[in-house]
Amino acid sequence: MTDISTDTALLAHAIEAAREGRATGGIPIGAALVVDGEVLAVGFNKRVQRDSPILHGETDCLANAGRLPASVYARATMVTTLSPCDMCTGAILLYGIPRVIIGENRTFYGGEDYLRERGVEVTVVDSEECVELMTEFIAAEPELWNEDIGEE
Amino acid sequence: MTDISTDTALLAHAIEAAREGRATGGIPIGAALVVDGEVLAVGFNKRVQRDSPILHGETDCLANAGRLPASVYARATMVTTLSPCDMCTGAILLYGIPRVIIGENRTFYGGEDYLRERGVEVTVVDSEECVELMTEFIAAEPELWNEDIGEE
Repeated sequence: MTDISTDTALLAHAIEAAREGRATGGIPIGAALVVDGEVLAVGFNKRVQRDSPILHGETDCLANAGRLPASVYARATMVTTLSPCDMCTGAILLYGIPRVIIGENRTFYGGEDYLRERGVEVTVVDSEECVELMTEFIAAEPELWNEDIGEE
Repeated sequence: MTDISTDTALLAHAIEAAREGRATGGIPIGAALVVDGEVLAVGFNKRVQRDSPILHGETDCLANAGRLPASVYARATMVTTLSPCDMCTGAILLYGIPRVIIGENRTFYGGEDYLRERGVEVTVVDSEECVELMTEFIAAEPELWNEDIGEE
């Protein structure tokens, strides 16, 4: 399950969601929830589109996946273009999702150490495409980005 | 700011929201975001009402408060009827909310140690009213409760 080609293939779904987010005026962070090799749901940051401080890529993805039993989360992988913030880290922990694939952690370093500490398997792909998405966005909209991560 | 009458008065807003949640068929956990002594928003768990796995009391409250600058969160208190789960703990940390008032932590013990570790001031009121709300609910709907905390 640490096949890099599989991780990259799964990451492509999250990147597609992130690009949709940017194309619709928002923050380019996307996620996909994968269960038994199938993409159950995707999501992207909707701070701008829905005026929401709680719809990050991962939480929007969980919302889109709907209410699921613990047994499904227990077989799931959360794929996200960016290192998850504290809220999304907590959402992953709440539902006992055992595996997280992260596109990149160079533009933002979230709760991945805490995820590992709590027993989650974390893989960082270090995708140039993900870094470029965030680098372009942060340069274009630094205030929006700071708002999204709770900074001034 | 550790005046128990103030904490109890603030908690009443979260309890009122929790009761609305139960009265509308949902899970009786409520929250209030208080800034400069004023209740900016309330919220309650809407797993049932909105079919959502991410609308817990605290996150629904943050969503209802809308997009806020970091300087407002920095003066805020999150009031919640129940010890916050990992997701809501993370949301509080993401936005740098410095103070949390918890109704009770007897029926569920969430991320309050981690909040303290990260520098958040946590007060537990140990409200009988909050314990009764949850005790009644858990006895009536154990499966729904387990779903909400990611357990079987």
